[in-house]
Amino acid sequence: MKYRIGIDLGGTNIAVGLVDEAYRFLAKESVKTEAWQGFDHVTDNMAKLCKKLMDGTGLCPAQIDCIGVGSPGAADKRTGEIVFAGNLNWSHVPLTDTLARKTGIGRVFLGNDADCAALGEFVMGAGRDFDSLGMITIGTGVGGGIVLENKLFAPAGTVAPELGHTTLIYKGESCTCGRKGCLEAYASFTALIRDANRAADAHPESALALLRAKGEKLNGKNIFQAAKQDDPIASQLVACFLDYIAQGATNIAIAFGVPLIVIGGGISKEGDYVAGQIEDIVKKEMFGGPQYAPKIRMATLGNDAGILGAAALADYQ
Amino acid sequence: MKYRIGIDLGGTNIAVGLVDEAYRFLAKESVKTEAWQGFDHVTDNMAKLCKKLMDGTGLCPAQIDCIGVGSPGAADKRTGEIVFAGNLNWSHVPLTDTLARKTGIGRVFLGNDADCAALGEFVMGAGRDFDSLGMITIGTGVGGGIVLENKLFAPAGTVAPELGHTTLIYKGESCTCGRKGCLEAYASFTALIRDANRAADAHPESALALLRAKGEKLNGKNIFQAAKQDDPIASQLVACFLDYIAQGATNIAIAFGVPLIVIGGGISKEGDYVAGQIEDIVKKEMFGGPQYAPKIRMATLGNDAGILGAAALADYQ
Repeated sequence: MKYRIGIDLGGTNIAVGLVDEAYRFLAKESVKTEAWQGFDHVTDNMAKLCKKLMDGTGLCPAQIDCIGVGSPGAADKRTGEIVFAGNLNWSHVPLTDTLARKTGIGRVFLGNDADCAALGEFVMGAGRDFDSLGMITIGTGVGGGIVLENKLFAPAGTVAPELGHTTLIYKGESCTCGRKGCLEAYASFTALIRDANRAADAHPESALALLRAKGEKLNGKNIFQAAKQDDPIASQLVACFLDYIAQGATNIAIAFGVPLIVIGGGISKEGDYVAGQIEDIVKKEMFGGPQYAPKIRMATLGNDAGILGAAALADYQ
Repeated sequence: MKYRIGIDLGGTNIAVGLVDEAYRFLAKESVKTEAWQGFDHVTDNMAKLCKKLMDGTGLCPAQIDCIGVGSPGAADKRTGEIVFAGNLNWSHVPLTDTLARKTGIGRVFLGNDADCAALGEFVMGAGRDFDSLGMITIGTGVGGGIVLENKLFAPAGTVAPELGHTTLIYKGESCTCGRKGCLEAYASFTALIRDANRAADAHPESALALLRAKGEKLNGKNIFQAAKQDDPIASQLVACFLDYIAQGATNIAIAFGVPLIVIGGGISKEGDYVAGQIEDIVKKEMFGGPQYAPKIRMATLGNDAGILGAAALADYQ
């Protein structure tokens, strides 16, 4: 049996899973990242979680084939360094070497978190019956990952594919990356909430303004809820948001030719009707006609995608 | 010696070259496409040109390793069909089979024309010292091609990578493809001329308006000329045009991680100062910082790129 550990390193939490060779979970744990305590502390936490999972399942380091880590920011898979990760405040830290030393497990693989989520959905989730896919993760930002012919597409020494930072509107809204008009500046929940607040300002009669008047902060959940209850302003806002996502999906399909695009992040809980709406738009927008349009599916693994994809890094390089 | 024939099939001309195994031209010819005369006539013309090149060099079909064809529109490399080509008015024509029969050369490879141009520059032109590149061809439209780790990126059964039809401005100018706001709708010469005519309408004192008053039609050449002579309106227009191209180049680098982007088409004659201007913008725009920015180079092969890339298809699939 070939056991593996997958680690999803986030700005807030570290989630770790121990899986067998069929990527079934034997155990899973998470702790707070506490990034402000520094690299040594965070990697100690990661190593402790690995040990806890091994202890709980009665396995020793020699029985673990490898560890895979999905990290935010830019990860260099050749050197095993995290080149930079803004939300961890790290630059040029030797992650794989450190983790190998602290766990006693020699083979440690490193990838970008959005890439790992795409790989997880490819191996065990919405994309398991495809040989290529694109994934867009809609959260605070917009992440993207690509699998091409059973390999994760993540060229060494580059930031690609950072699909959330390709252009949707030239000279549009400012993006966190410094560029203007990125997909992330329109199709993230951060952007949806910004747009919803603007709409509430402009339409004091809307359900969104009433929510705010009751002291609620607007968020993805209550904005989608208001749209489902047919508030015209919220409905228009959500339709526009789905259109942004669909345009991003179309661009990915036109560039990469993938037959499936998986939509992940909080929006995946909204259900298949959202995937259907996005798919209808992509069919209309696709270059060459609807026969070239990819299928659109919601992610099925939630937060496990990142762990499973990290555990799978060794097999899909 | 392994001789090959490369065919660049265009809406206006068919250009054919016979090369040796180092991709040196032994002979080159071209004729009008005369697409209105139909598939049979056009493939007859292609076969006649192949025969003429063989006769001229004293080679027989058995000495030709293969033919490669770069075709406009959507080409299916698996079936050898051109699925559709709007400017030839073709749909589902069996190109490789027909050409093999008419030439007596058994191995015929098919690719998209923009892909072949990228491959040509990769093998013999601006990208010959790189292992991956992106290419944007600025012409009537905007074509795009990608080479990744010594292989042409052209997934079978898809239209990818149609980089000219990814979004620059959501809901922007109408594009020939039916979408709105594609890169092609801003960064093609067709778009530049449209914008120049609008600018001339709005600024009757500008050099562009004066050119029109003299009966000249605006085109890429005289618009760039007016900008070089410091006409403020033309200068602004050209700066904006180069910015569009730079944003497109940045998007390609962010999505594909290529270390080089080659700019081809008529604009490549404008010289390296244009490449330098585009490179400066890409450095500022690049996700992760200028260290991840690709180099920008002008194409060096002109129309030969398509022929050479077609001849190289067999080696870089």
